[in-house]
Amino acid sequence: MRTYLDCVPCFFKQALDAAKLAGANKATQKKILNDLAKEVIAFDLNECPTAMGRILYKLVRTTTGRHDPFKKLKQKSNELALSFYHRLKAKVNRSQDRLLTAIELAIAGNIIDYGVKHSINIDKEIDKIFKEEHKVIRQEDKRLFDYSAFKHALKKAKKILYIGDNAGEIVFDRLLLEEFKDKKVLFAVRGEPIINDALIEDAKFCGIDRYARIISTGCGAPGAILKFCSLSFRKIFQDADLIISKGQGNFEALAGEKGPIYFLFRAKCPVIAKHLRCDIGDIILKKAN
Amino acid sequence: MRTYLDCVPCFFKQALDAAKLAGANKATQKKILNDLAKEVIAFDLNECPTAMGRILYKLVRTTTGRHDPFKKLKQKSNELALSFYHRLKAKVNRSQDRLLTAIELAIAGNIIDYGVKHSINIDKEIDKIFKEEHKVIRQEDKRLFDYSAFKHALKKAKKILYIGDNAGEIVFDRLLLEEFKDKKVLFAVRGEPIINDALIEDAKFCGIDRYARIISTGCGAPGAILKFCSLSFRKIFQDADLIISKGQGNFEALAGEKGPIYFLFRAKCPVIAKHLRCDIGDIILKKAN
Repeated sequence: MRTYLDCVPCFFKQALDAAKLAGANKATQKKILNDLAKEVIAFDLNECPTAMGRILYKLVRTTTGRHDPFKKLKQKSNELALSFYHRLKAKVNRSQDRLLTAIELAIAGNIIDYGVKHSINIDKEIDKIFKEEHKVIRQEDKRLFDYSAFKHALKKAKKILYIGDNAGEIVFDRLLLEEFKDKKVLFAVRGEPIINDALIEDAKFCGIDRYARIISTGCGAPGAILKFCSLSFRKIFQDADLIISKGQGNFEALAGEKGPIYFLFRAKCPVIAKHLRCDIGDIILKKAN
Repeated sequence: MRTYLDCVPCFFKQALDAAKLAGANKATQKKILNDLAKEVIAFDLNECPTAMGRILYKLVRTTTGRHDPFKKLKQKSNELALSFYHRLKAKVNRSQDRLLTAIELAIAGNIIDYGVKHSINIDKEIDKIFKEEHKVIRQEDKRLFDYSAFKHALKKAKKILYIGDNAGEIVFDRLLLEEFKDKKVLFAVRGEPIINDALIEDAKFCGIDRYARIISTGCGAPGAILKFCSLSFRKIFQDADLIISKGQGNFEALAGEKGPIYFLFRAKCPVIAKHLRCDIGDIILKKAN
Protein backbone atom coordinates (compact mmCIF):
# COMPACT_ATOMS: atom_id res chain seq x y z
CA MET A 1 0.00 0.00 0.00
CA ARG A 2 1.34 3.42 -0.94
CA THR A 3 1.72 6.26 1.51
CA TYR A 4 -0.97 8.91 1.54
CA LEU A 5 -0.14 12.54 2.27
CA ASP A 6 -2.52 12.27 5.22
CA CYS A 7 0.05 9.95 6.79
CA VAL A 8 2.58 12.81 7.03
CA PRO A 9 1.16 14.60 10.12
CA CYS A 10 0.91 11.18 11.81
CA PHE A 11 4.61 10.48 11.11
CA PHE A 12 5.52 13.61 13.07
CA LYS A 13 3.13 12.68 15.86
CA GLN A 14 4.53 9.16 16.10
CA ALA A 15 8.13 10.42 16.12
CA LEU A 16 7.37 12.95 18.85
CA ASP A 17 5.53 10.40 20.99
CA ALA A 18 8.32 7.86 20.58
CA ALA A 19 10.97 10.50 21.38
CA LYS A 20 9.14 11.43 24.57
CA LEU A 21 8.75 7.79 25.55
CA ALA A 22 12.48 7.33 24.98
CA GLY A 23 13.07 10.12 27.51
CA ALA A 24 14.46 12.61 24.99
CA ASN A 25 14.66 16.22 26.20
CA LYS A 26 13.05 19.03 24.23
CA ALA A 27 16.17 19.80 22.19
CA THR A 28 16.55 16.15 21.19
CA GLN A 29 12.84 15.94 20.36
CA LYS A 30 13.25 18.97 18.09
CA LYS A 31 16.33 17.44 16.45
CA ILE A 32 14.36 14.27 15.77
CA LEU A 33 11.49 16.24 14.20
CA ASN A 34 13.97 18.22 12.10
CA ASP A 35 15.69 15.06 10.89
CA LEU A 36 12.31 13.50 10.19
CA ALA A 37 11.34 16.58 8.16
CA LYS A 38 14.37 15.94 5.92
CA GLU A 39 13.38 12.27 5.58
CA VAL A 40 9.81 13.25 4.69
CA ILE A 41 11.08 15.55 1.93
CA ALA A 42 13.13 12.71 0.45
CA PHE A 43 10.49 10.01 0.96
CA ASP A 44 8.95 8.30 -2.06
CA LEU A 45 5.20 8.11 -1.53
CA ASN A 46 5.08 4.91 -3.57
CA GLU A 47 6.67 3.23 -0.57
CA CYS A 48 4.30 1.98 2.13
CA PRO A 49 3.74 4.01 5.33
CA THR A 50 5.51 1.23 7.22
CA ALA A 51 8.70 2.10 5.33
CA MET A 52 8.59 5.54 6.92
CA GLY A 53 7.81 3.88 10.26
CA ARG A 54 11.08 1.98 9.83
CA ILE A 55 12.97 5.22 9.20
CA LEU A 56 11.34 7.24 11.95
CA TYR A 57 11.65 4.75 14.78
CA LYS A 58 15.27 4.11 13.78
CA LEU A 59 15.82 7.86 13.94
CA VAL A 60 14.43 7.96 17.47
CA ARG A 61 16.56 4.96 18.41
CA THR A 62 19.83 6.30 17.08
CA THR A 63 19.25 9.87 18.27
CA THR A 64 18.23 8.95 21.80
CA GLY A 65 20.52 5.93 22.11
CA ARG A 66 17.55 4.01 23.52
CA HIS A 67 17.61 0.72 21.66
CA ASP A 68 14.22 -0.54 22.82
CA PRO A 69 12.22 2.20 24.59
CA PHE A 70 9.02 0.15 24.53
CA LYS A 71 10.61 -2.87 26.26
CA LYS A 72 8.83 -2.39 29.59
CA LEU A 73 5.51 -1.67 27.92
CA LYS A 74 5.88 -4.85 25.85
CA GLN A 75 6.68 -6.95 28.91
CA LYS A 76 3.66 -5.49 30.71
CA SER A 77 1.44 -6.21 27.69
CA ASN A 78 2.66 -9.81 27.53
CA GLU A 79 2.08 -10.41 31.23
CA LEU A 80 -1.32 -8.81 31.22
CA ALA A 81 -2.51 -10.67 28.13
CA LEU A 82 -1.23 -13.97 29.58
CA SER A 83 -3.14 -13.30 32.79
CA PHE A 84 -6.27 -13.30 30.64
CA TYR A 85 -5.29 -16.42 28.71
CA HIS A 86 -7.54 -18.88 30.58
CA ARG A 87 -10.58 -16.66 30.28
CA LEU A 88 -9.91 -16.24 26.57
CA LYS A 89 -9.40 -19.98 26.12
CA ALA A 90 -12.65 -20.68 27.95
CA LYS A 91 -14.36 -18.38 25.47
CA VAL A 92 -13.05 -20.49 22.59
CA ASN A 93 -14.01 -23.71 24.39
CA ARG A 94 -17.54 -22.48 24.91
CA SER A 95 -17.93 -21.43 21.30
CA GLN A 96 -19.98 -23.28 18.72
CA ASP A 97 -17.47 -22.21 16.09
CA ARG A 98 -14.08 -22.40 17.78
CA LEU A 99 -12.13 -21.18 14.75
CA LEU A 100 -14.32 -18.14 14.26
CA THR A 101 -14.12 -17.21 17.93
CA ALA A 102 -10.34 -17.64 17.88
CA ILE A 103 -10.16 -15.37 14.82
CA GLU A 104 -12.36 -12.79 16.51
CA LEU A 105 -10.15 -12.85 19.59
CA ALA A 106 -6.98 -12.59 17.50
CA ILE A 107 -8.39 -9.50 15.82
CA ALA A 108 -9.61 -8.13 19.14
CA GLY A 109 -6.05 -8.50 20.44
CA ASN A 110 -4.94 -6.23 17.62
CA ILE A 111 -6.13 -3.22 19.62
CA ILE A 112 -2.88 -3.54 21.59
CA ASP A 113 -1.00 -1.25 19.25
CA TYR A 114 0.96 1.71 20.44
CA GLY A 115 2.02 3.13 17.08
CA VAL A 116 -1.37 4.09 15.74
CA LYS A 117 -3.17 4.85 18.96
CA HIS A 118 -0.33 6.82 20.59
CA SER A 119 -1.52 5.67 23.99
CA ILE A 120 -2.62 2.43 25.41
CA ASN A 121 -4.65 1.20 28.33
CA ILE A 122 -4.40 -2.53 28.07
CA ASP A 123 -6.67 -3.40 31.01
CA LYS A 124 -9.40 -1.30 29.52
CA GLU A 125 -8.89 -2.71 26.05
CA ILE A 126 -9.04 -6.31 27.25
CA ASP A 127 -12.08 -5.45 29.30
CA LYS A 128 -13.73 -4.22 26.10
CA ILE A 129 -13.04 -7.56 24.44
CA PHE A 130 -14.95 -9.35 27.18
CA LYS A 131 -17.81 -6.92 26.98
CA GLU A 132 -18.05 -7.79 23.29
CA GLU A 133 -18.70 -11.40 24.34
CA HIS A 134 -22.22 -11.64 23.04
CA LYS A 135 -21.70 -9.37 20.10
CA VAL A 136 -20.77 -11.01 16.84
CA ILE A 137 -17.97 -8.72 15.72
CA ARG A 138 -17.43 -10.23 12.31
CA GLN A 139 -18.66 -8.31 9.33
CA GLU A 140 -21.35 -9.47 6.97
CA ASP A 141 -19.43 -7.89 4.12
CA LYS A 142 -17.43 -10.63 2.35
CA ARG A 143 -15.26 -7.99 0.74
CA LEU A 144 -13.83 -7.20 4.19
CA PHE A 145 -14.43 -10.40 6.13
CA ASP A 146 -14.35 -13.64 4.16
CA TYR A 147 -14.46 -16.33 6.80
CA SER A 148 -15.56 -19.19 4.57
CA ALA A 149 -12.71 -18.63 2.09
CA PHE A 150 -10.25 -18.46 4.98
CA LYS A 151 -11.61 -21.64 6.56
CA HIS A 152 -11.29 -23.41 3.24
CA ALA A 153 -7.71 -22.18 2.70
CA LEU A 154 -6.77 -23.23 6.23
CA LYS A 155 -8.18 -26.72 5.73
CA LYS A 156 -6.02 -27.27 2.67
CA ALA A 157 -2.89 -25.55 3.99
CA LYS A 158 0.17 -27.57 4.93
CA LYS A 159 2.80 -24.85 5.43
CA ILE A 160 1.43 -21.84 7.26
CA LEU A 161 3.31 -18.62 7.82
CA TYR A 162 1.79 -16.38 10.52
CA ILE A 163 3.33 -12.91 10.60
CA GLY A 164 2.76 -11.51 14.08
CA ASP A 165 2.32 -7.95 15.16
CA ASN A 166 2.48 -6.61 18.72
CA ALA A 167 3.62 -7.85 22.11
CA GLY A 168 0.62 -8.86 24.23
CA GLU A 169 -1.44 -9.32 21.10
CA ILE A 170 0.52 -12.49 20.35
CA VAL A 171 -1.23 -14.20 23.29
CA PHE A 172 -4.44 -13.70 21.31
CA ASP A 173 -2.69 -15.04 18.20
CA ARG A 174 -1.67 -18.10 20.21
CA LEU A 175 -5.34 -18.96 20.75
CA LEU A 176 -5.76 -19.05 16.98
CA LEU A 177 -2.55 -21.05 16.47
CA GLU A 178 -3.90 -23.60 18.92
CA GLU A 179 -6.82 -24.20 16.56
CA PHE A 180 -4.47 -25.04 13.68
CA LYS A 181 -3.82 -28.39 15.41
CA ASP A 182 -1.29 -30.51 13.49
CA LYS A 183 -0.42 -27.98 10.78
CA LYS A 184 3.19 -26.92 10.35
CA VAL A 185 3.24 -23.25 11.37
CA LEU A 186 6.01 -20.69 11.33
CA PHE A 187 5.40 -17.58 13.42
CA ALA A 188 7.40 -14.54 12.30
CA VAL A 189 8.29 -11.55 14.45
CA ARG A 190 10.23 -8.36 13.71
CA GLY A 191 13.96 -8.44 13.20
CA GLU A 192 14.67 -5.48 15.51
CA PRO A 193 12.90 -3.62 18.32
CA ILE A 194 10.28 -1.33 16.79
CA ILE A 195 7.48 0.33 18.78
CA ASN A 196 5.69 -2.35 20.82
CA ASP A 197 5.98 -4.98 18.11
CA ALA A 198 6.71 -8.52 19.30
CA LEU A 199 10.25 -9.89 19.10
CA ILE A 200 11.47 -13.48 19.48
CA GLU A 201 11.74 -13.07 23.28
CA ASP A 202 8.10 -11.92 23.45
CA ALA A 203 6.88 -14.83 21.34
CA LYS A 204 8.74 -17.29 23.57
CA PHE A 205 7.50 -15.62 26.75
CA CYS A 206 3.93 -15.94 25.50
CA GLY A 207 4.34 -19.63 24.70
CA ILE A 208 4.05 -19.32 20.92
CA ASP A 209 6.88 -21.85 20.58
CA ARG A 210 4.58 -24.61 21.78
CA TYR A 211 2.43 -24.22 18.67
CA ALA A 212 4.75 -22.83 16.01
CA ARG A 213 8.38 -22.38 15.13
CA ILE A 214 9.35 -18.80 15.86
CA ILE A 215 11.35 -17.01 13.17
CA SER A 216 12.39 -13.43 12.43
CA THR A 217 11.40 -11.48 9.36
CA GLY A 218 14.86 -9.97 9.43
CA CYS A 219 13.18 -6.61 8.92
CA GLY A 220 13.08 -3.89 11.55
CA ALA A 221 10.04 -2.08 10.13
CA PRO A 222 6.67 -2.25 11.90
CA GLY A 223 5.46 -4.48 9.06
CA ALA A 224 7.14 -7.13 6.89
CA ILE A 225 8.39 -5.12 3.91
CA LEU A 226 9.68 -7.95 1.76
CA LYS A 227 12.62 -6.09 0.24
CA PHE A 228 13.95 -5.41 3.73
CA CYS A 229 13.32 -8.95 4.99
CA SER A 230 16.02 -11.61 5.12
CA LEU A 231 16.54 -13.97 2.21
CA SER A 232 15.53 -16.92 4.38
CA PHE A 233 12.28 -15.21 5.37
CA ARG A 234 11.48 -14.40 1.76
CA LYS A 235 12.03 -18.06 0.87
CA ILE A 236 9.61 -19.11 3.61
CA PHE A 237 7.14 -16.50 2.38
CA GLN A 238 7.30 -17.89 -1.16
CA ASP A 239 6.96 -21.49 -0.03
CA ALA A 240 4.01 -21.01 2.34
CA ASP A 241 0.61 -22.16 1.13
CA LEU A 242 -1.18 -19.92 3.63
CA ILE A 243 0.15 -16.64 4.96
CA ILE A 244 -1.65 -14.91 7.80
CA SER A 245 -0.62 -11.29 7.96
CA LYS A 246 -1.60 -9.83 11.32
CA GLY A 247 -2.10 -6.17 12.04
CA GLN A 248 -2.27 -2.95 10.07
CA GLY A 249 1.50 -2.56 9.72
CA ASN A 250 1.80 -5.91 7.94
CA PHE A 251 -1.19 -5.01 5.76
CA GLU A 252 0.46 -1.74 4.74
CA ALA A 253 3.68 -3.59 3.94
CA LEU A 254 2.19 -6.57 2.12
CA ALA A 255 -1.02 -5.29 0.50
CA GLY A 256 0.66 -5.08 -2.90
CA GLU A 257 2.24 -8.57 -2.77
CA LYS A 258 0.98 -11.65 -4.53
CA GLY A 259 0.46 -14.87 -2.63
CA PRO A 260 -1.98 -16.85 -0.49
CA ILE A 261 -2.10 -14.02 2.03
CA TYR A 262 -4.99 -13.38 4.41
CA PHE A 263 -4.88 -10.04 6.20
CA LEU A 264 -6.26 -10.14 9.70
CA PHE A 265 -6.52 -6.80 11.48
CA ARG A 266 -8.58 -3.97 12.79
CA ALA A 267 -8.66 -0.79 10.66
CA LYS A 268 -7.17 1.77 12.99
CA CYS A 269 -6.70 5.07 11.24
CA PRO A 270 -8.69 7.26 8.84
CA VAL A 271 -6.22 6.64 6.02
CA ILE A 272 -6.66 2.86 6.14
CA ALA A 273 -10.43 3.20 6.58
CA LYS A 274 -10.60 5.35 3.46
CA HIS A 275 -8.26 3.04 1.55
CA LEU A 276 -10.44 0.01 2.34
CA ARG A 277 -13.74 1.89 2.19
CA CYS A 278 -14.61 0.81 5.72
CA ASP A 279 -15.01 2.47 9.11
CA ILE A 280 -12.30 2.95 11.70
CA GLY A 281 -12.52 -0.01 14.08
CA ASP A 282 -13.87 -2.42 11.45
CA ILE A 283 -12.40 -5.89 11.64
CA ILE A 284 -10.86 -7.26 8.51
CA LEU A 285 -10.20 -10.81 7.29
CA LYS A 286 -9.33 -10.29 3.69
CA LYS A 287 -7.49 -12.25 1.03
CA ALA A 288 -4.76 -10.44 -0.91
CA ASN A 289 -5.97 -9.36 -4.34
CA MET B 1 2.86 31.94 23.82
CA ARG B 2 5.71 29.81 22.55
CA THR B 3 5.25 26.94 20.12
CA TYR B 4 5.16 23.46 21.55
CA LEU B 5 6.59 20.52 19.65
CA ASP B 6 3.10 19.01 19.78
CA CYS B 7 2.05 21.80 17.40
CA VAL B 8 4.29 20.40 14.65
CA PRO B 9 2.06 17.50 13.48
CA CYS B 10 -0.87 19.95 13.47
CA PHE B 11 1.05 22.36 11.21
CA PHE B 12 1.35 19.59 8.61
CA LYS B 13 -2.30 18.69 9.00
CA GLN B 14 -3.39 22.31 8.60
CA ALA B 15 -1.20 22.80 5.53
CA LEU B 16 -2.53 19.64 3.91
CA ASP B 17 -6.15 20.53 4.64
CA ALA B 18 -5.68 24.06 3.32
CA ALA B 19 -3.90 22.78 0.21
CA LYS B 20 -6.80 20.41 -0.50
CA LEU B 21 -9.33 23.16 0.06
CA ALA B 22 -7.38 25.36 -2.37
CA GLY B 23 -7.83 22.61 -4.96
CA ALA B 24 -4.15 21.63 -5.12
CA ASN B 25 -3.38 18.32 -6.83
CA LYS B 26 -1.36 15.61 -5.06
CA ALA B 27 1.99 16.83 -6.45
CA THR B 28 1.31 20.39 -5.29
CA GLN B 29 0.15 19.11 -1.90
CA LYS B 30 3.42 17.20 -1.55
CA LYS B 31 5.42 20.27 -2.59
CA ILE B 32 3.64 22.30 0.07
CA LEU B 33 4.38 19.70 2.74
CA ASN B 34 8.03 19.56 1.62
CA ASP B 35 8.36 23.34 1.76
CA LEU B 36 6.64 23.36 5.14
CA ALA B 37 9.12 20.73 6.35
CA LYS B 38 11.96 23.16 5.52
CA GLU B 39 10.14 25.97 7.33
CA VAL B 40 9.61 23.75 10.38
CA ILE B 41 13.33 22.96 10.51
CA ALA B 42 14.17 26.69 10.46
CA PHE B 43 11.37 27.72 12.83
CA ASP B 44 12.23 29.22 16.21
CA LEU B 45 10.02 27.60 18.84
CA ASN B 46 10.13 30.78 20.88
CA GLU B 47 7.80 32.25 18.26
CA CYS B 48 4.09 31.67 18.79
CA PRO B 49 2.25 28.91 16.82
CA THR B 50 0.38 31.66 14.99
CA ALA B 51 3.70 32.77 13.46
CA MET B 52 3.93 29.37 11.80
CA GLY B 53 0.28 29.70 10.80
CA ARG B 54 1.28 32.87 8.98
CA ILE B 55 4.05 31.05 7.15
CA LEU B 56 2.09 27.94 6.28
CA TYR B 57 -1.05 29.58 4.93
CA LYS B 58 1.11 31.97 2.92
CA LEU B 59 2.90 28.93 1.52
CA VAL B 60 -0.43 27.41 0.47
CA ARG B 61 -1.49 30.74 -1.03
CA THR B 62 1.64 31.34 -3.07
CA THR B 63 2.02 27.71 -4.16
CA THR B 64 -1.58 27.25 -5.28
CA GLY B 65 -2.08 30.81 -6.50
CA ARG B 66 -5.39 30.81 -4.62
CA HIS B 67 -5.39 34.13 -2.75
CA ASP B 68 -8.40 33.44 -0.57
CA PRO B 69 -9.49 29.78 -0.73
CA PHE B 70 -11.82 30.17 2.25
CA LYS B 71 -13.75 33.08 0.72
CA LYS B 72 -16.93 31.11 0.00
CA LEU B 73 -16.83 29.41 3.39
CA LYS B 74 -16.47 32.81 5.06
CA GLN B 75 -19.39 34.26 3.14
CA LYS B 76 -21.53 31.26 4.04
CA SER B 77 -20.55 31.61 7.71
CA ASN B 78 -21.43 35.30 7.71
CA GLU B 79 -24.82 34.72 6.11
CA LEU B 80 -25.68 31.83 8.35
CA ALA B 81 -24.65 33.63 11.53
CA LEU B 82 -26.62 36.71 10.47
CA SER B 83 -29.69 34.56 9.88
CA PHE B 84 -29.48 33.66 13.56
CA TYR B 85 -28.91 37.24 14.69
CA HIS B 86 -32.45 37.96 15.90
CA ARG B 87 -32.68 34.76 17.89
CA LEU B 88 -29.31 35.52 19.47
CA LYS B 89 -30.35 39.09 20.23
CA ALA B 90 -33.58 37.85 21.82
CA LYS B 91 -31.45 35.65 24.05
CA VAL B 92 -29.55 38.74 25.25
CA ASN B 93 -32.80 40.69 25.68
CA ARG B 94 -34.29 37.93 27.81
CA SER B 95 -31.22 37.68 29.99
CA GLN B 96 -31.00 38.99 33.55
CA ASP B 97 -27.35 39.78 32.93
CA ARG B 98 -27.16 41.05 29.36
CA LEU B 99 -23.39 41.56 29.37
CA LEU B 100 -22.67 38.06 30.62
CA THR B 101 -25.01 36.50 28.07
CA ALA B 102 -23.41 38.55 25.30
CA ILE B 103 -19.97 37.37 26.43
CA GLU B 104 -21.16 33.77 26.51
CA LEU B 105 -22.54 34.09 23.00
CA ALA B 106 -19.36 35.76 21.75
CA ILE B 107 -17.36 32.83 23.10
CA ALA B 108 -19.89 30.34 21.73
CA GLY B 109 -19.40 31.94 18.31
CA ASN B 110 -15.71 31.12 18.60
CA ILE B 111 -16.50 27.53 17.62
CA ILE B 112 -16.66 28.77 14.02
CA ASP B 113 -12.97 28.16 13.42
CA TYR B 114 -11.69 26.18 10.49
CA GLY B 115 -7.98 26.18 11.34
CA VAL B 116 -8.09 24.17 14.52
CA LYS B 117 -11.07 21.96 13.79
CA HIS B 118 -10.18 21.15 10.17
CA SER B 119 -13.85 20.84 9.34
CA ILE B 120 -16.88 22.85 10.11
CA ASN B 121 -20.59 22.32 10.25
CA ILE B 122 -21.94 25.73 11.12
CA ASP B 123 -25.63 24.79 11.33
CA LYS B 124 -24.80 22.09 13.82
CA GLU B 125 -22.50 24.35 15.82
CA ILE B 126 -25.08 27.13 16.08
CA ASP B 127 -27.68 24.58 17.01
CA LYS B 128 -25.43 23.52 19.87
CA ILE B 129 -25.31 27.10 21.11
CA PHE B 130 -29.07 27.19 21.38
CA LYS B 131 -29.17 23.86 23.13
CA GLU B 132 -26.82 25.33 25.72
CA GLU B 133 -29.49 27.94 26.45
CA HIS B 134 -30.22 26.81 29.98
CA LYS B 135 -26.73 25.75 30.78
CA VAL B 136 -24.53 28.34 32.42
CA ILE B 137 -21.39 27.95 30.37
CA ARG B 138 -19.19 30.28 32.35
CA GLN B 139 -16.62 28.76 34.60
CA GLU B 140 -16.54 29.11 38.36
CA ASP B 141 -12.76 29.23 38.19
CA LYS B 142 -11.65 32.88 38.33
CA ARG B 143 -8.25 31.92 37.00
CA LEU B 144 -9.90 31.10 33.65
CA PHE B 145 -13.08 33.17 33.73
CA ASP B 146 -12.93 36.45 35.58
CA TYR B 147 -16.19 38.14 34.71
CA SER B 148 -16.24 40.63 37.58
CA ALA B 149 -12.77 41.97 36.71
CA PHE B 150 -13.79 42.27 33.07
CA LYS B 151 -17.02 44.06 33.94
CA HIS B 152 -15.10 46.50 36.09
CA ALA B 153 -12.50 47.12 33.35
CA LEU B 154 -15.24 47.66 30.78
CA LYS B 155 -17.04 50.17 32.98
CA LYS B 156 -13.92 52.32 33.27
CA ALA B 157 -12.75 51.89 29.67
CA LYS B 158 -12.94 54.76 27.21
CA LYS B 159 -10.94 53.47 24.28
CA ILE B 160 -11.66 49.83 23.53
CA LEU B 161 -9.81 47.75 20.99
CA TYR B 162 -11.61 44.52 20.03
CA ILE B 163 -9.44 42.17 17.98
CA GLY B 164 -11.76 39.90 16.02
CA ASP B 165 -11.23 36.37 14.87
CA ASN B 166 -13.32 34.46 12.33
CA ALA B 167 -15.95 35.27 9.74
CA GLY B 168 -19.43 34.33 11.01
CA GLU B 169 -18.14 34.53 14.57
CA ILE B 170 -18.06 38.32 14.26
CA VAL B 171 -21.87 38.38 14.26
CA PHE B 172 -21.62 36.97 17.77
CA ASP B 173 -19.00 39.62 18.60
CA ARG B 174 -21.41 42.26 17.36
CA LEU B 175 -23.91 41.26 20.06
CA LEU B 176 -21.22 42.00 22.63
CA LEU B 177 -20.24 45.28 20.93
CA GLU B 178 -23.88 46.35 21.14
CA GLU B 179 -23.66 46.10 24.92
CA PHE B 180 -20.73 48.54 25.03
CA LYS B 181 -23.23 51.34 24.28
CA ASP B 182 -21.52 54.74 23.98
CA LYS B 183 -17.91 53.54 24.32
CA LYS B 184 -15.47 54.30 21.54
CA VAL B 185 -14.62 50.93 20.04
CA LEU B 186 -12.18 49.93 17.33
CA PHE B 187 -12.71 46.50 15.81
CA ALA B 188 -9.59 45.00 14.22
CA VAL B 189 -9.53 42.31 11.56
CA ARG B 190 -6.64 40.55 9.77
CA GLY B 191 -4.57 42.39 7.19
CA GLU B 192 -4.74 39.61 4.59
CA PRO B 193 -6.91 36.57 3.85
CA ILE B 194 -5.92 33.79 6.24
CA ILE B 195 -8.00 30.65 6.81
CA ASN B 196 -11.59 31.71 7.59
CA ASP B 197 -10.52 34.75 9.61
CA ALA B 198 -12.65 37.86 9.17
CA LEU B 199 -11.47 40.67 6.89
CA ILE B 200 -12.78 44.23 6.58
CA GLU B 201 -15.39 43.12 4.02
CA ASP B 202 -16.72 40.48 6.45
CA ALA B 203 -16.92 42.94 9.32
CA LYS B 204 -18.86 45.39 7.14
CA PHE B 205 -21.14 42.67 5.84
CA CYS B 206 -21.96 41.65 9.40
CA GLY B 207 -22.78 45.20 10.43
CA ILE B 208 -19.87 45.67 12.81
CA ASP B 209 -19.42 49.21 11.45
CA ARG B 210 -22.63 50.30 13.17
CA TYR B 211 -21.03 49.74 16.56
CA ALA B 212 -17.31 50.16 16.01
CA ARG B 213 -14.76 51.58 13.62
CA ILE B 214 -13.30 48.73 11.61
CA ILE B 215 -9.53 48.68 11.25
CA SER B 216 -6.91 46.21 10.05
CA THR B 217 -4.12 44.78 12.18
CA GLY B 218 -1.94 44.98 9.11
CA CYS B 219 -0.84 41.45 9.92
CA GLY B 220 -1.73 38.43 7.80
CA ALA B 221 -1.22 35.86 10.55
CA PRO B 222 -4.23 34.11 12.13
CA GLY B 223 -3.57 36.16 15.27
CA ALA B 224 -2.30 39.69 15.90
CA ILE B 225 1.47 39.18 16.24
CA LEU B 226 2.48 42.73 17.18
CA LYS B 227 5.83 42.75 15.39
CA PHE B 228 4.05 41.94 12.13
CA CYS B 229 1.23 44.47 12.70
CA SER B 230 1.20 47.92 11.17
CA LEU B 231 2.65 50.87 13.07
CA SER B 232 -0.78 52.48 13.24
CA PHE B 233 -2.30 49.33 14.75
CA ARG B 234 0.46 49.09 17.30
CA LYS B 235 -0.17 52.71 18.29
CA ILE B 236 -3.87 51.93 18.76
CA PHE B 237 -2.92 48.84 20.78
CA GLN B 238 -0.74 50.94 23.09
CA ASP B 239 -3.34 53.66 23.53
CA ALA B 240 -6.32 51.40 24.27
CA ASP B 241 -7.44 51.16 27.88
CA LEU B 242 -9.21 47.87 27.25
CA ILE B 243 -8.19 45.30 24.66
CA ILE B 244 -10.44 42.35 23.96
CA SER B 245 -8.52 39.63 22.21
CA LYS B 246 -10.90 37.16 20.62
CA GLY B 247 -10.08 33.59 19.72
CA GLN B 248 -7.24 31.17 20.27
CA GLY B 249 -5.05 32.59 17.49
CA ASN B 250 -5.00 36.03 19.09
CA PHE B 251 -4.32 34.43 22.47
CA GLU B 252 -1.34 32.56 21.05
CA ALA B 253 -0.05 35.77 19.47
CA LEU B 254 -0.64 38.12 22.41
CA ALA B 255 -0.31 35.95 25.53
CA GLY B 256 3.18 37.29 26.23
CA GLU B 257 2.28 40.98 25.74
CA LYS B 258 1.71 43.51 28.48
CA GLY B 259 -1.41 45.64 28.50
CA PRO B 260 -5.04 45.78 29.59
CA ILE B 261 -5.81 42.68 27.52
CA TYR B 262 -8.69 40.30 28.16
CA PHE B 263 -8.57 37.06 26.25
CA LEU B 264 -11.94 35.73 25.24
CA PHE B 265 -11.97 32.31 23.61
CA ARG B 266 -12.68 28.64 23.74
CA ALA B 267 -9.69 26.35 24.32
CA LYS B 268 -9.67 24.26 21.19
CA CYS B 269 -6.66 21.99 21.10
CA PRO B 270 -4.76 19.77 23.53
CA VAL B 271 -1.71 22.05 23.47
CA ILE B 272 -3.68 25.10 24.62
CA ALA B 273 -5.60 23.04 27.17
CA LYS B 274 -2.33 21.81 28.66
CA HIS B 275 -0.80 25.29 28.52
CA LEU B 276 -3.73 26.78 30.45
CA ARG B 277 -4.31 23.72 32.63
CA CYS B 278 -7.90 23.47 31.45
CA ASP B 279 -9.98 21.07 29.36
CA ILE B 280 -10.53 21.26 25.62
CA GLY B 281 -13.77 23.19 25.08
CA ASP B 282 -13.41 25.28 28.24
CA ILE B 283 -14.41 28.87 27.82
CA ILE B 284 -11.87 31.47 28.81
CA LEU B 285 -12.19 35.11 29.86
CA LYS B 286 -8.79 35.87 31.21
CA LYS B 287 -6.74 38.99 31.83
CA ALA B 288 -3.18 39.07 30.47
CA ASN B 289 -0.60 38.37 33.17
